[in-house]
Parts: sequence; structure tokens; C-alpha cells
Amino acid sequence: MFDATKTNRAYCGIPTFLRADLCALGGEIPTDAMAVLGIPFDEASPFMPGARFAPRSLREHSLRFSPQSYYDMTSDRTYLTDAVTGRAIVDAGDVDVVPVNVAATHHNITEAVAVLLAADAIPVVLGGDHSISFPVVSAFQRPIHVIQIDAHLDFAPITDTLTYTNGQPFRHISNLPQVQSVTHIGARSLRIREAEYRDTLAAGNRIVGMDEIRETAIEDWLGHIPADASVYLSVDIDAFDMSLVPGCVSGEPDGLDYRQMRSLLKAIVARFDLVGFDLVEINPQLDVATGATSYLGAQVLVELMGYRLAKVRMSELAN
Amino acid sequence: MFDATKTNRAYCGIPTFLRADLCALGGEIPTDAMAVLGIPFDEASPFMPGARFAPRSLREHSLRFSPQSYYDMTSDRTYLTDAVTGRAIVDAGDVDVVPVNVAATHHNITEAVAVLLAADAIPVVLGGDHSISFPVVSAFQRPIHVIQIDAHLDFAPITDTLTYTNGQPFRHISNLPQVQSVTHIGARSLRIREAEYRDTLAAGNRIVGMDEIRETAIEDWLGHIPADASVYLSVDIDAFDMSLVPGCVSGEPDGLDYRQMRSLLKAIVARFDLVGFDLVEINPQLDVATGATSYLGAQVLVELMGYRLAKVRMSELAN
Amino acid sequence: MFDATKTNRAYCGIPTFLRADLCALGGEIPTDAMAVLGIPFDEASPFMPGARFAPRSLREHSLRFSPQSYYDMTSDRTYLTDAVTGRAIVDAGDVDVVPVNVAATHHNITEAVAVLLAADAIPVVLGGDHSISFPVVSAFQRPIHVIQIDAHLDFAPITDTLTYTNGQPFRHISNLPQVQSVTHIGARSLRIREAEYRDTLAAGNRIVGMDEIRETAIEDWLGHIPADASVYLSVDIDAFDMSLVPGCVSGEPDGLDYRQMRSLLKAIVARFDLVGFDLVEINPQLDVATGATSYLGAQVLVELMGYRLAKVRMSELAN
Amino acid sequence: MFDATKTNRAYCGIPTFLRADLCALGGEIPTDAMAVLGIPFDEASPFMPGARFAPRSLREHSLRFSPQSYYDMTSDRTYLTDAVTGRAIVDAGDVDVVPVNVAATHHNITEAVAVLLAADAIPVVLGGDHSISFPVVSAFQRPIHVIQIDAHLDFAPITDTLTYTNGQPFRHISNLPQVQSVTHIGARSLRIREAEYRDTLAAGNRIVGMDEIRETAIEDWLGHIPADASVYLSVDIDAFDMSLVPGCVSGEPDGLDYRQMRSLLKAIVARFDLVGFDLVEINPQLDVATGATSYLGAQVLVELMGYRLAKVRMSELAN
Amino acid sequence: MFDATKTNRAYCGIPTFLRADLCALGGEIPTDAMAVLGIPFDEASPFMPGARFAPRSLREHSLRFSPQSYYDMTSDRTYLTDAVTGRAIVDAGDVDVVPVNVAATHHNITEAVAVLLAADAIPVVLGGDHSISFPVVSAFQRPIHVIQIDAHLDFAPITDTLTYTNGQPFRHISNLPQVQSVTHIGARSLRIREAEYRDTLAAGNRIVGMDEIRETAIEDWLGHIPADASVYLSVDIDAFDMSLVPGCVSGEPDGLDYRQMRSLLKAIVARFDLVGFDLVEINPQLDVATGATSYLGAQVLVELMGYRLAKVRMSELAN
Amino acid sequence: MFDATKTNRAYCGIPTFLRADLCALGGEIPTDAMAVLGIPFDEASPFMPGARFAPRSLREHSLRFSPQSYYDMTSDRTYLTDAVTGRAIVDAGDVDVVPVNVAATHHNITEAVAVLLAADAIPVVLGGDHSISFPVVSAFQRPIHVIQIDAHLDFAPITDTLTYTNGQPFRHISNLPQVQSVTHIGARSLRIREAEYRDTLAAGNRIVGMDEIRETAIEDWLGHIPADASVYLSVDIDAFDMSLVPGCVSGEPDGLDYRQMRSLLKAIVARFDLVGFDLVEINPQLDVATGATSYLGAQVLVELMGYRLAKVRMSELAN
Repeated sequence: MFDATKTNRAYCGIPTFLRADLCALGGEIPTDAMAVLGIPFDEASPFMPGARFAPRSLREHSLRFSPQSYYDMTSDRTYLTDAVTGRAIVDAGDVDVVPVNVAATHHNITEAVAVLLAADAIPVVLGGDHSISFPVVSAFQRPIHVIQIDAHLDFAPITDTLTYTNGQPFRHISNLPQVQSVTHIGARSLRIREAEYRDTLAAGNRIVGMDEIRETAIEDWLGHIPADASVYLSVDIDAFDMSLVPGCVSGEPDGLDYRQMRSLLKAIVARFDLVGFDLVEINPQLDVATGATSYLGAQVLVELMGYRLAKVRMSELAN
Repeated sequence: MFDATKTNRAYCGIPTFLRADLCALGGEIPTDAMAVLGIPFDEASPFMPGARFAPRSLREHSLRFSPQSYYDMTSDRTYLTDAVTGRAIVDAGDVDVVPVNVAATHHNITEAVAVLLAADAIPVVLGGDHSISFPVVSAFQRPIHVIQIDAHLDFAPITDTLTYTNGQPFRHISNLPQVQSVTHIGARSLRIREAEYRDTLAAGNRIVGMDEIRETAIEDWLGHIPADASVYLSVDIDAFDMSLVPGCVSGEPDGLDYRQMRSLLKAIVARFDLVGFDLVEINPQLDVATGATSYLGAQVLVELMGYRLAKVRMSELAN
Repeated sequence: MFDATKTNRAYCGIPTFLRADLCALGGEIPTDAMAVLGIPFDEASPFMPGARFAPRSLREHSLRFSPQSYYDMTSDRTYLTDAVTGRAIVDAGDVDVVPVNVAATHHNITEAVAVLLAADAIPVVLGGDHSISFPVVSAFQRPIHVIQIDAHLDFAPITDTLTYTNGQPFRHISNLPQVQSVTHIGARSLRIREAEYRDTLAAGNRIVGMDEIRETAIEDWLGHIPADASVYLSVDIDAFDMSLVPGCVSGEPDGLDYRQMRSLLKAIVARFDLVGFDLVEINPQLDVATGATSYLGAQVLVELMGYRLAKVRMSELAN
Repeated sequence: MFDATKTNRAYCGIPTFLRADLCALGGEIPTDAMAVLGIPFDEASPFMPGARFAPRSLREHSLRFSPQSYYDMTSDRTYLTDAVTGRAIVDAGDVDVVPVNVAATHHNITEAVAVLLAADAIPVVLGGDHSISFPVVSAFQRPIHVIQIDAHLDFAPITDTLTYTNGQPFRHISNLPQVQSVTHIGARSLRIREAEYRDTLAAGNRIVGMDEIRETAIEDWLGHIPADASVYLSVDIDAFDMSLVPGCVSGEPDGLDYRQMRSLLKAIVARFDLVGFDLVEINPQLDVATGATSYLGAQVLVELMGYRLAKVRMSELAN
Repeated sequence: MFDATKTNRAYCGIPTFLRADLCALGGEIPTDAMAVLGIPFDEASPFMPGARFAPRSLREHSLRFSPQSYYDMTSDRTYLTDAVTGRAIVDAGDVDVVPVNVAATHHNITEAVAVLLAADAIPVVLGGDHSISFPVVSAFQRPIHVIQIDAHLDFAPITDTLTYTNGQPFRHISNLPQVQSVTHIGARSLRIREAEYRDTLAAGNRIVGMDEIRETAIEDWLGHIPADASVYLSVDIDAFDMSLVPGCVSGEPDGLDYRQMRSLLKAIVARFDLVGFDLVEINPQLDVATGATSYLGAQVLVELMGYRLAKVRMSELAN
Repeated sequence: MFDATKTNRAYCGIPTFLRADLCALGGEIPTDAMAVLGIPFDEASPFMPGARFAPRSLREHSLRFSPQSYYDMTSDRTYLTDAVTGRAIVDAGDVDVVPVNVAATHHNITEAVAVLLAADAIPVVLGGDHSISFPVVSAFQRPIHVIQIDAHLDFAPITDTLTYTNGQPFRHISNLPQVQSVTHIGARSLRIREAEYRDTLAAGNRIVGMDEIRETAIEDWLGHIPADASVYLSVDIDAFDMSLVPGCVSGEPDGLDYRQMRSLLKAIVARFDLVGFDLVEINPQLDVATGATSYLGAQVLVELMGYRLAKVRMSELAN
């Protein structure tokens, strides 16, 4: 969709992510592409709903970044050069959400991600509330480690009646046979139940709290995952300090600042083989009018794409 | 909860409806009371969610009316005198919503309404989105006629995947054996599908469009329901013209003004035995900051209660 | 402040009403001027406060009208020509509000209005909540009739503890010796207490409800006030239908539309000697983001000024 | 873009208008199609800017209508059947706005519309502020009549410094050689300057005020335009009563209700050859959170498309 | 009110604080309970009013925490276990505010707190604006020290006209005979007047500015209060950095982050006998739509309750 | 305008900056005064417009500070004593913005600033978007250095069509003959294009990124400007971390906190001869409802004025 001869102000044009080409799921996904997939689902929200509008809002704010590349002044490096025009990034549109039918919606999600994986694409998932991570991860066949950056554990017990809320996805994920480990980074909320804490540790998972983040090195928390392992990363925007995410209903104090997040994203991409990622829990309905939370989320996604593609290119050069 | 020795400003106090006593569902519901029941459910919302907060908001705005009575200048009559202190109105709290589990939530709704009906109370239901009317009406055992005041028909076909959205409740209701008829008043939206229109007529139901409302008399549209029949009334706030309901996501132009609504409410109470009613589709998350839509909704409920209790009293006097 | 050589976009410049000259109260008020006086007081608000910001907001929206004149297409007449440049309109700034000290604030209000009256100016008062009308009217010495256009009566009983809320000003006003009558136009709220209704009638006042407005002629409701009597007019913005005033906390359904209001304003100016007026209960904190309610309020004021000055000029010509 | 096998909730999917196919301007526009063109330009806004986001918002709200057809219960007719799938409606995306360069932006607008006209398409233009109508109309080569439904005249004098504000487009348009007449319908604002009024009449144009709309028949106001003449229609959303358009900065009281607008749209399509139309002055930044003003605007466009295509089909059948 | 058999989503149910039992002030307050008391008063607000809605909003957001306990991952401790079901926490409802009558309201506040103190309860006060701390503290009979965490000193001179604004409470408090000292923590605003600063020091009080907080240890600032002294704590939400409190009108830059606040709260509870506390100056009318400021306030209260009850239990065990 | 006998609540009175006297540009500007000049222009905004309302909003929030002086507790110093009453600060009103005519607006800006400079006043400029800095700086005749505190460089290439957006002003400024250097402090956005970075360095300018700010001393970054040089300072509010400026459309993460900004402002005033300054990019239309961003901006301006006048006085004393 990008046309370099135009001015391309962010308020102009049909919004795909970064003005990437819109690709239907049936066959045109370029191999190895980062394929953006929206999942506008928020029926599992525990308090104020509205995250269903985040895929649309993230795409709109992504247009504030140049589709041609971005420049990181600090490292004097340019990222994403020609990624959009060269179809290293495409937009696969949204999953079809079936209202009040969580089974059908989960089925559609898993199927859509499976199509992307079958094309050897890297799914870049735009939530939605956090419940969507479970059907997304379910689509992966190969063994993966899951890293969750989040103020909460989302590891609530599963009961007969409460099964697919956004407090439970990582218990479901931890139970998947292909998932080797779950690592919770940034957990700190007083709303985490003790049972969640005990159960995820008992399941062999790893929790990294804010004190650890402040006082120890990243290698200390990520050492339990083998280097170059396949990693799926799930970023809940509430991992950030609540002052940075006014449009996130589950914002919590004492969270990550941007530099901490950036270091973490860089380290994860550098050490592991990032095979997919999601960003969840932005609620544009309730955000401040400038859309600051969506902008921040779009930047996280753009940087992750940048680091991931830079790594691919370096490794291509190395061959 | 009401204490006549206090000033009772609307911003003071724990908000039950009209400061009525809070009654648990297990046994303390006074016979013949109007029992307010909140159903904070909006997972079936087709566009912007948030109606789950309406029971809370309706109760808060109800406090702007006096719990001691209200006076209608036009008719020089006083309504609801001693209704709250005499427990002719009580607040039964909210139904327990089970997130992302529509079956469990519907079960809880039907059960809660059944408890009220078992106590010979009149359920005054605060939605939620319109999907809640189906499990509410399901609780009625005796034959009833259903009147829906709404810009839409909510009679969408039921499919394997789409079953309990807020576009379908009146098809479900129409299929209930105890429901003798459904009367749709105020239907006008361009989003009504032709199939809905044909199917509800085919099912023997009645549609009253805006032209009929403007040009013919109420008796013309309600004559198909026997006098003194048991009637359940469901009011979607979008029946009003959209200019009156900025906090309703499904607002439509060319709707009812307040006088038309009031005439309708009065006529329905006068002609029939109103055995329960609901008010749905107010979204306080998205309303204007003055909460105008919740205030309007609270007034509709207060008037309906007033007319219903006045009728009871007159008939009591007549005996 | 008006400079005709400038473009004068509404968002430019220090906002006095209609860019009129700012006149300190001590002596520079031109004789016979309409003198705008802000009373940013809302401590008497019964629900959501914020009307204290209305004087500022009304001045800002007044700048959307031309300071040079306005043209009424329907009557093909031009109003307010040279009123600002000729200092027939001036802005006297705001009354000094003393927080949490209603006696001191009332004193300041009455004194400020008295200064304007001493200069033979016509006070054009920008509220504030409706409680401010009492200290304003208190400043008048000569016999006056008071007309209140309002959805409510504001005639609540005065008790030891509740004295100066915005539900009581017209009882205070009715008790003032110089006030010959109070006429309540547009009363309709279900929140009017029966005691208010009975008491104001008992005091010899007149109520004009919506049915009367719709079905009878203005002369029928205003006939009890002698032609050419001195009249003070108090307009509560909630007289309008609530759909027109989203930024008014006390908005009520079934209210005046704009044409009804305009007819009323014209009739009052034509029949009586309008010696002052106020506009109250706009809450800019809670208005829709376009400021629609303030704009509507500013237009009401501009029209009233236009009619009042047109009458003066015609009578000047007649001499 | 429309896929009938999906649920297609309005919050899902990349938003083109009605999920119509996105067509680049260079050649793929189907002949005789209605081609939606966004012009996200608001630099000419006289008060609060933000209308640049209306094309995006109108597309999003258009998704609430079915892309398969819409049903009008009143007339028992179905409109737009297969219009999207049959490419009778396409979306041509947005004009490239060049910031702070009105000449370049106007050039881009005129050129884009010219491309559509060259393809024999009917431009369906989504503003933007009202200044965009001038460069749009400039693209027409054949003689046309222009009808403007608007609370204002937008016929302000053109000066050396003030040239392309949104107060002036219809003076520019009236000066175009291909424009045979301008008809202003709904004009009523007190902010209309007398010079505008006199000048447009002097130019041979026609003004239809609210009294005329209420008291006379449509044929009385449209009779000066020859039957079947080519007509370009420009709808300013502020033609509606301000209570219906909280997200329009220039809203005015005493405006059109929806039925009046609908009658007008039907009459214009029925009598004339509608060769293009625009809808302007919705400001989504400032609208109520439900987006009511955008929804209303989308409905106006959908109805206009429906009437226009129905007429084509009837005439096709007639041949 | 808490029913452990329910799902208890935060949007369900009549909101008392943490779903604690609602206890009327006349006699049912359990001994030693923490008794929540709302004071919905904001007439003393110096700029934008609206804090009157904070008791309601704080209760609503408190429901996001579990009524059964909360778990602190860092210390691996559980707090508030059975506090609600065991009635160690109750909700005493709201003080009756008498509008525009500060004397009557203050009287009601002092009386309500006195009732709680007479029952040996610990008042947990939900403001309102900061002026309410004076009538609250007035109810204490025994000698107490007062600690204020606040960006301001609120120690403005008292004059004939300005007496009970929210700029003056701590001067009134400092003058109370039972108050042994006032300690101002977090003071930093440029709006603090020099006279306030000089006067509070002259009265023997202690100011702890942000530099001291950053550079010295808590014991350095609290050493002047005897260990185990009775302490009343007043927390103005503006003590936090303004980035954390978008819904606080008096937010100031360079404030406390959450960890600093938490350390402070823990230290105060650990060292002293906390006999009551308040949280003030949250304005839900103006907060971001997610209610972030109310959530943060609720968390401060929940933690304070947790620390206070944990201390009681430990000391009970020690006996 | 300031009257010390009044209470002067921030919501009272016609808002000039700090209640300073309003001085027309034609001659009454006191020599050496700090002259506040509003430039309500935002047509160059690249995303969401609305900064045109910032001059009005900054003036309104300035009233929350005392016009008589402000006290800095940390340094135990009082600033701005008698500055308003002694006319060391005046308000020169707003530049006349000519809509959709950037040349005319720029001309008016440059001319207005030139008038202030001719009076030996120090312009204190209230933007507006950042494009206004170019016509402001153009008015200076003597050699100056320009310091820009900003998350961006605003040094985009100038093309035939894109010339005066808010991404370009510092390239224009850098090209002015009187400008000796441009120093960009706080640059960090990923939206900075590499070309901007390379070009400004190539032009001999200096960039100070966030790492440098955190790790090196101010003298390290300002050493290239001669001591006591004439400096014009332009502060983009987005230099602050985005958590502090919810009402700034271009907010970016990882920005300055308030203490860093304050140190910077003090250092700049101390080292150089500050000959003028601006504050830009606050968007009150989109700010949180408390107006936090405007308040923060007003405080930056008040402090800058305080430091600047304190320096003047000290140097006066030294003579």
C-alpha cells in the first residue's frame, strides 16, 4: 500500500500496519515475512472492555513511523530499510471474531496463526485482551519457550465455569505439550493470587519480579532458556509503569520504564530465535485523546520488528 | 438504606436503586415488590462494549430522584409515595456474571429472575446489552406477551456459530413456549436485515414502525394483545432518538421523543398486567460526562415503577 | 479590545465577551451599556460541579460571533451594529468568588451588580450555578418582575441547614420586597417536589408548563405582568431539551427547542423593560468536546442583547 | 475486501468504506462505480480542528452497515444489493494532503477527482472541512448545478489574505464557469454575514432557509434547477440540528431532523442526475465517545449511494 | 456483602469498599475494625471541583482487589486474610454532606468520626478535597501526631473571609490542642507560599522535601515523633508524581514514585500506632477513562489496611 | 489586571498570563519587560491538531500561580516579586493568525516579535505548534544561538511542496544568518530521520541525546556556546517523558523528568543572555481533563521568567 511518491501523513490512507501490503491468509504470505495479524477480541476482559479496537488503533499509530526505515540515533543504525516495500513485513488483516462464542473465535485464531506458520512467517499479533495468547500459542507445533512481559501472571486456576478469562492464558499455555517453559517478567501486581504464584513455580516456570529487574542482569533471568531456542514473546502493555499507559485498564504502579523494556526486547531477540510475538491489553476506547498508549504499543512492535529483521540480515550475511 | 433525616445528596451514600433496601435473593424479597436486578453483562455487544457498567450508573442516577415520592406536575399526581420505605421497591443486587461463559451467565440470570418471580415480585431488570432479555424472559412460567421498544428487531437468524449476540434475543424469546407474541415498537434502523423483518412477521409477531407511531393511535398497535394480559416489557434505550442517548452505541436517528415514550409506557401499564421489565443498552463508559443517558434511563424506570405501583394501589382500593 | 483590522479568529486573543472593552467596576461603565458580569460560582451544585468555568467558556464561544453585528436572515435585520465598538456592550469581568464562604460571595455579587445598576447599565450575568440569581436580584432596588425559564422551579423550602443551594433561589427571590412576581416557564422535571409547586402558587407566582407552552399563546402566560414592567430574566440552560445541552448536569427531557426559546426571548423583550438577565448551569468541564452547550448559551446571550439594544434604538428613534 | 464467509463484525478488518475493494486511482476504477474518496484536510477550520480524521472514522462506522445490502422497512425495499461485491462501489483511498500547502493539496484533490470522473465514476467524497468542496467541484468539466445542504452559506468575501478558509468555498464555486447555480439549503446561522447573503443572491443563487423547509414543498425550492440536470451535492453535517451532531464544531440550533434530510436526499436523487457528492465537517477527535456523528454521516452516505444506485438500476431496466 | 460462592467481577454488585459489610454508624461497628467512611465533599476545591465523587469511585476500584486477601510477591506474605469476612474491615457509608453549609458538614464529619472512635474503630477516610482532614482530626480526643504526605503544605493563613478552603486544613489542625506535631512529607509545589513555609516551621512542625526524601533515610525525617506514638496519616494523592495521578487537579511534577510511597507507608505503620488515615483529592469526574487515579488510591488504602492489620496480628501473637 | 484586594481564584477573571497587564503592541510595552505573546497556530501539525488553543490554556493555568511571587522551598528563594505589579511582566496578547495563509501568518508573527524586540522586551512566546519558532527567531537582528529542548530535531529537508511543517523549523532557523548555532537537547524519537541527524551535524550544530543528558554534565553540552552569548530557547513540551505530557501529540518515551528540565533551564539562564523563549506543542483539546499538560507548561514558563528576572536583578545590583 505504501507509495513513496506521496506525502503519507499519518492521518491519510487506509491503515495497514506501517502501510504494509495487505495479504489474504490464503497463500500470498511471503516466506519469512513478519506477518501482522489483528485479533480484535476483548470478551475476556475482567473490568472495562474495549481492547477489541486496539488492532485498528495500533495500525493507525504505526503510520506515524516511516514505512521506509527508522533510525536509532543512539546506536547510529537504521532499521527496517525496505522491509515494507520488500514485503519483509505484510499485514494479514484481522482474525474473524465470532461474538459470544469463545470456542469458535479460538478456533479461528489458531487456524489463522497456523496459516502464517505454514508459510514460515513470523506472526506479529495485535491483541485484544490477553486471553488471545493461548489460541495463538496453540498453533505452534515445534517446541517453544514462552516469555511473558506483564504486571500479572495470568495463571489463575481453571474451573468448570471460569476457563478462558484473561487471567488464565498462561496456565493453559504452560499445559501445552510444545511449551517448554514460561517466563513471567515484570510481575508485581497485588492482584496476583498466591495460588498463581505457587502453581507456576510448581510447574517449573520462572518469575522475574521488579526487584530482580532492577538489581540483577538480564542474563540472570533468561539463563534457563537455551541460547537460540525458539521463543514466543507476549507483551502485555501493563508491563510498563501505569504512568506510561493511561489507556490500559490493568495498569499497575512500579512498572518498567521504556529503557528497561527496550533492553529486554533487544536481549530476547539477540539470544533466542523469536518465532512470534503479541502485544495486548491496549484499550483505545479509554485511552487519552492523543492515543499515547497506542503510540507506545506501536513503537514496541516497530522496534521488535526492527531487531528481529536486523538479526535475520546479519545472519544472512554471515552465511 | 434510605434515611429521611439526612440530606441525601445524590453523590452521597452506597448506591442502591432509589436508596431501596438491599435484599439478598434468598428469601427476603417482599411479596409484590418491584425488585431491581442488575445484569452487568455486555459480552454480546456488536460494536463498542461497556454496557456492563449500566446497572451501577443507573443506580447512581436514580439517587437524583427522591426516594420518598415524585410529583408529576402535569397530572398533579404524586407517585411512589412510601414505596421505598414501605419496601414496595427493593434492590436485589446484581446477577453474578461468569465471564466468557455465556451458558453459566444465562443460567445465573434465569435463576435469579425465577427467585424473584417465586416471591411474586416484579423484576425490574437493569441491563447490560440486549442479549440479557432472553434468559430473563426464560424464567417466566406463565403465558406472557412480550413488548419490545427498540430501534431494531433483534431477530437475527440463529446459526451454529452466532447464537447469543445482542442481535438475536427476540428470536429466542419468540420461540419460547410461554411467549404468546412479540411486539416490536419503534423499529426503524437501516441495519435491520430483511430476513429479520420477514421472519418475525412470519412468526406472528407485530412490528410498529415510526410512521405508525406518528400517524396512528396506540390502541391500533396494541390491540392484538388481550386486555389485562401478562406483559413483559423490554426497553432498549436506542428506541429514543439518538440525540437523546449519546451514551448508547446503537443510537439511530428518527426515534421516539420523550413524550411518545411516556405515552407508550402509560398505555402499556394501563392496559396490561406488567409482570416485569428491563432497560438495556446504556453504555456509561462512553456516555457524555454528565451521564445524561443514564439519567434518562433512570427516569424511564422510575416512571414505569410509578405507573405500575399506582395501578396496583388503585386496584387495591377498588377491591 | 476589538480591532477591526485583524482577522480575529475565535481562537485568537484574550477573551472578553464579544471582544468588548474590559471595564473595571469602579466608574468606567458607560451609561445604558449592557455590562457582562461573570459569576464563576458552583459550590451550590447539587450533583456534578463545574459550572464555575462557564463565564470563561461563554466568553470564548462568544468570539465565534462577530463583534461588529449579526444578521438574522429570517427577518432580514442586522443586530448589534457597532455595539461593541460604541461601548453599548462592555465586559465588567468576574465577581470575586470567596471559596467556602457563601455569605462573602453573595455580598460580592450583590455589590458588583449594584455598581452596574448605579451606572444605569443592564447587567448581563454569566453563571455559575442557579444559586447566583438570588444575590443578583437582591441588588435591584426598584420593583421588578422576575421571569425564570427553567426545567425546575428552584423553589425548595428553606431550612436551618439547607439555605443557599441551587434548588432554592427563587423562593428567596420571591420573598424579596422589590419582587412583584415570579413566573416559572418550562417547568417539567419529575424532580420538582410537590411542596415547591404548591408554595410558589401560594405565593402568587405563575407556572407555565410544557403543555401550556405547546398549546397556548405567549400572551396567555405573560399577561399577568403589566406591559412595560421592569423584568429581570433568568435563563437556566436546562430549559432546553436535554438533547441540546449535553454539558448541563440538570438536563431534562421534553424541553424547549430553539425556536420556542427564541420566540419567548423576543416576546419578553418586546413586552417588558428588560433590566437585567442571567444565563446559568452550563458546565464546561463536562460538556462535549466541541463545547456545544457553551456555544448555545453564548447565542442565547447574543440574541438577547440584540433584541434589547434593537428595542432601545427603535424607542430612541421614536423620540 | 468483503468476504461473505466471515462474521464481519464492525470492529474487525481493515476499514475501507462498506468493505468495498480498494482501488488505486491509476486505472482500476470500474466504470459507473461510486468511488469513495477521502480528503483528510482540516487546515481551513475556523475554530477547533480535527475533521481530518473523518474519512477514517466514516469508513469505520460504515462497517456497521452490511456490505451486502440494506433494507428500508418503510418502503419495503432493499438497496445496495451486490453493490460492494459487484464493484458498483469501490474505495479509492485518500487524497495525499500536503501540509501547510493549500495550493498543492488543492491540486491533488482536483486531480484525484478528475481521475474518477475520467473513469465515469461518481465521486463520493469524505471531508475534511468544507473548504475541500471547491477543489472537488473544480474537477468537473461539464455544466453542473451545485446544491449545498448546510447551516451556513460559506460565501464569505475573498480577500488578499483570506482566500481558502472553510467560510469561502461556495463563493469560489459560484465563480466557476461550469457551475450553473448554487442552492443553499438549511442556512440559518447567526454567524452568516449579511454580505454573504446579499452576494450569493446577487450572483443568481438560491437560499432555502428553515422556515421555507418547514412551510413549503421541496419542489418549490428545487424548481429553478432543470429536471435531470447534473447536480453535485455537498452536505455539511451541520445542516442537521446541533443535537444530532455533537461531533461537529459548527453545529447550530434549529436545524434539520433526520426525516427532513432523508426527504431532501431522495428528492434530489429522484429529480436530478447526481454526479458526485461530499459529506464534510465531522470532527471525530471531538465527537462523543460512541462516534454518533460519524455513524450519522455514514448513514447519510449509505442512503445516498442506495438511492443513486437504485435510480441507475431502474433506468437500466427501463432501457 | 461478600459472597465467596460468586465470581465477583469488579463490575458486579453494590460497591462497598472491598465488599465489606455495610454498617450503620449507630452501634454495629465491630471493635478494632477498620471502618471505611466516605466524605464526598469538594466545595473547598480551589480550581476544578469533582472530588466529591471519589468515595464512590474508590469503592468501585477497591472491588478489583480480592476481598479474601492479597498477596505480596516480594515479601512472600499474604495480607488481609479474612479481614472482610471476619469484619476486621467494615464500610460505614458516607457522611451526610450539607451543601453550601460548611459548618453543618464539618459537624457531621466530626460526629461520624467520633462515633467510629467511640467504637475503637480505625477510621479509613475517603475524601473529598483536603479540607475534610480538619473536621476528621477534630474528632480525636487523645494526643496524636499528624503526618501529611502531600505536594503542598495546606498551611495558608486564615483570614476573615478565607477560612475553610483546601489550602488551610493543616493550619487548623496544627492549632488543635490534641495535635502534638504536623509532619509534611513530599512538599514541593511552587504554589506553596513562603508564609506557609515559615509559619509551619515556626509552629514547631517538620517539612520533608523531595531532596530529603531522595537523599536521607526515613528515620531521619520521622525521628522527631516518639516511637509508638498515636499517628493520624493524611495522604493527598498529589504526593505522587503528576504522571501517576492524571485525575488529580493539584498534581505537581517531581513527586513520589510508588516505591517511595510504599516504603513510607510501611515505615509509618511499623513505627507508630496508626489511629486513622485519609486519602484525598482524587477527582473521578476528570480522571482518565480507565480510572487509573482511583485505582492507585484504592491500592494505597488496601496496602495501608494490610500493613495495619498485619501489625495488629503480630502484636496479638506476641502477647 | 491584577488586583491584590481580591481572592483571585484561578477560575475567576479574564485570563492574561499571571494576570499581567494587557499591553497592545503599539508602544506601551515597558522596556526590559518579559512580554508574553500567544501564537495560536497549529496548521502545521503533522498528526492531531489543536495546539492553537494552548496560549489560552497556558494563560488560564498560569493563574494558579500567584501573580505576586513564587517561593522555591529548595533554595529558600522568592522569585517574581512585584514582577506583575511592576510591569516587569506584561501580556501582549496574541498574534493575528490568518487561516490557510502561512505566509501572512508568518509575517504577522515576525512583525509582532520585532515590535517587542524594538521595545527591548524579552518575548515569551506561547505556541502553537513548533513551526512558529522559525518566524519568531526571524525577528531577531543580532547574532544569537538557538537552543532547542525537544524529543525531535525538526530538521527535515525542505522540498518544493513541504516547506513550513512543524518538522522543519530548525532547518530554516539554522539557515538564518543571525543564528550562530543550533543545539538540540533531548532528541530521542525513532521518528527522527537519519537525514535530519546527518544534516544538522553537517551544519555545525550540536545534538545532545538522552544518554548524554544522563551521563555527562551540562557544561559538556553547552560549552560550545560562548558564555553570556545571546540565546533564544525553544522548549517543545515533548522533551518531557510522555508520561508527563498526556496532552502532547508528539510525546515520546524515555524523556526528561522535571528535575532534569529544571537543571537545564537554570543552567541556560545562568550561563547565557536569554533574549527570548517559546513553549510549544501543548494540545489542550486532547489533554486530560485536569489540564495537566498546560499546567506543566505554565510552570516551565513561570520558572524561566523567575530565573531570568532574578538574574537581571542580581546583575543590576552588581552594577
